Amino acid sequence: MGLLMIPGPVQLHERIIKAMCRQMIGHRGKEFSKIFEYCIDGLKELFGTKHEVYIISGSGTSGMEAAIASFSNVKRIACVDNGKFGDRLCRIASKYTEVDEIRFEWGKSIELERIEESFENGSEAIAFVHNETSTGILNPAKEIAKIAKKYDALVIMDGITSVGGDVVKMDEWGIDVAIVGSQKCLGCPPGLAAVAVNERAWDYYNEKAPFYLDLKAYKKKVPDLQTPYTPAVPLFYALEEALKIIEEEGLENRIKRHRTLSKAIRVWATEAGLELFPQLNEYSSYSNTVTAIKMPENVTDKELRGTLQSEYGITISGGQEHLKGKIFRIGTMGNIGKAEVVTTLAAVEDVLMRKNAIKSALHAAIEVLKEL
Amino acid sequence: MGLLMIPGPVQLHERIIKAMCRQMIGHRGKEFSKIFEYCIDGLKELFGTKHEVYIISGSGTSGMEAAIASFSNVKRIACVDNGKFGDRLCRIASKYTEVDEIRFEWGKSIELERIEESFENGSEAIAFVHNETSTGILNPAKEIAKIAKKYDALVIMDGITSVGGDVVKMDEWGIDVAIVGSQKCLGCPPGLAAVAVNERAWDYYNEKAPFYLDLKAYKKKVPDLQTPYTPAVPLFYALEEALKIIEEEGLENRIKRHRTLSKAIRVWATEAGLELFPQLNEYSSYSNTVTAIKMPENVTDKELRGTLQSEYGITISGGQEHLKGKIFRIGTMGNIGKAEVVTTLAAVEDVLMRKNAIKSALHAAIEVLKEL
Repeated sequence: MGLLMIPGPVQLHERIIKAMCRQMIGHRGKEFSKIFEYCIDGLKELFGTKHEVYIISGSGTSGMEAAIASFSNVKRIACVDNGKFGDRLCRIASKYTEVDEIRFEWGKSIELERIEESFENGSEAIAFVHNETSTGILNPAKEIAKIAKKYDALVIMDGITSVGGDVVKMDEWGIDVAIVGSQKCLGCPPGLAAVAVNERAWDYYNEKAPFYLDLKAYKKKVPDLQTPYTPAVPLFYALEEALKIIEEEGLENRIKRHRTLSKAIRVWATEAGLELFPQLNEYSSYSNTVTAIKMPENVTDKELRGTLQSEYGITISGGQEHLKGKIFRIGTMGNIGKAEVVTTLAAVEDVLMRKNAIKSALHAAIEVLKEL
Repeated sequence: MGLLMIPGPVQLHERIIKAMCRQMIGHRGKEFSKIFEYCIDGLKELFGTKHEVYIISGSGTSGMEAAIASFSNVKRIACVDNGKFGDRLCRIASKYTEVDEIRFEWGKSIELERIEESFENGSEAIAFVHNETSTGILNPAKEIAKIAKKYDALVIMDGITSVGGDVVKMDEWGIDVAIVGSQKCLGCPPGLAAVAVNERAWDYYNEKAPFYLDLKAYKKKVPDLQTPYTPAVPLFYALEEALKIIEEEGLENRIKRHRTLSKAIRVWATEAGLELFPQLNEYSSYSNTVTAIKMPENVTDKELRGTLQSEYGITISGGQEHLKGKIFRIGTMGNIGKAEVVTTLAAVEDVLMRKNAIKSALHAAIEVLKEL
């Protein structure tokens, strides 16, 4: 019996597993269209938009590329990189237009002055990651969009790991294009990405977008409540059920749960004598869907994550790229609750205490979890 | 209780449905790698290759684009279009390089002279569809590859609806790149595509391929038995089970079953007084995975397919694009057997006989099915 506590794919709710356990239906028939419509409507709520949402059969990265490739008819785009996924945005965008890479050391916060500078120097669009899972930082989406508005620039936000788990108000904030992945806060299995697009974004439409990721093809099929290419039907079954669960829980309650679970982990870490990885400034905050913690000096990644896996069957994440072995990350996404967080912290605590790396602080986490 | 008899997505074997009914696992762990390796090895058999196979989370179209985009470093590519998917190949290829479109009326066979001409005129590569589901034709893959070899040209074959259901011998025939989709002859749900690639293809590598569909990223992760981006894990569960079923049945038996099922439909159609849609020449043959039949003149698409759906719960396909209302198509892909074919033909016969459009010929189909 494993427990997945990584920042996606997430542990699935039993109802979502069962939803996939169904015979196929034709993807050009009414039954599929009904599911499709329900999914689109549900996702609009989570994005905070009244505009269109397109669902792509592919990973979150396919959604990032569809968003950037389809709306890259600009002279230059500013791409913010303060983590692995920001870096990925830069690399994708550079395939389609000139990129002004606004780089910060991974784990550091975005300085808004640098963004303003990029617009002053001619950037006509910006792409950034809302919730950077590689470092555990929540970037200041609203503030970035506000600056972009002054320069009438297009705003593309990777909300892959925030939509459905944290506050996202696309229309209110002035985000033109936003992306979500199925296997994160929505609580689904991986394999679907959705891109929300307002009308203004179409002024930036790039007809050289890749065939499969050209959102105009998806837009054309919306009146038929279909996708242009064969959709991953079982994952739509799962998404439908996941959105029902979200509706039942209520988005506000869901966000509160995500916030409380991650707060419990942060409080635990600090009390235990560990250090959180993000370096915040006044605009940024800790992620509410994943917590990144510095690895104690005398503990290796294998000792912590390997032991957790072999003894407890619990999977947490390590650091990516140059952060390998330097941090560990615990996801609090989707439909998990108190029990999963307590189990995980108890297990991590056990392993780290054996190495005399921390003191016990489980009580502090449990205290926070009483808020739920 | 519905029955899907379209050329994909196919009706699922109960074992494949159940295989998806599992909790998620980490996509960077050993358990996933084991599934991944089994899938790759199984697919190699079906492609008839000893070279690499890359699995993309996306529809068959994502596989077509990954294949063409990644290996389009040529001055000109010949694209053969004698159906909807050939047309799609042309449209995808034109995003990446100059295309010589070799067009034939949909339903007509490929004339090999036209292909030879294209190479003589400077085409350095060719892309074609092996089994064209929109028209029910099996195009002459082996012969096309043979001509390409004379000109040392790269050969890309869309085997989306032939691999796993008909004879495909990539290495023996001299195919450099081939594609399959999960929801066709493999018997899986939709959402995965696989691309088989030999070493020679890398001489044609195009570094401007889209980020998500750049097969070099997939190649880099092969030693780790992983995918570069989060894979659609439930669909890998399904693929693993589907490949086990294929192994148990034996590929030869499976191909024989596909051939017999489609032959039964063709014999039935002819006996009943219907006309098959494909116009064959000495190189082409009828598809063994989908049969395209001309619609009787006094019957509308709605009368046939609508009644089948509402009265019997059976879904068959109509014609696509300009063939809408002019043909109907019955898939014989994946894990269906005698019973599904007999049910479908009995129902089609019932509907068409009410319109006095045909005479009964079910006995002829049943006679053919005795071969199984």
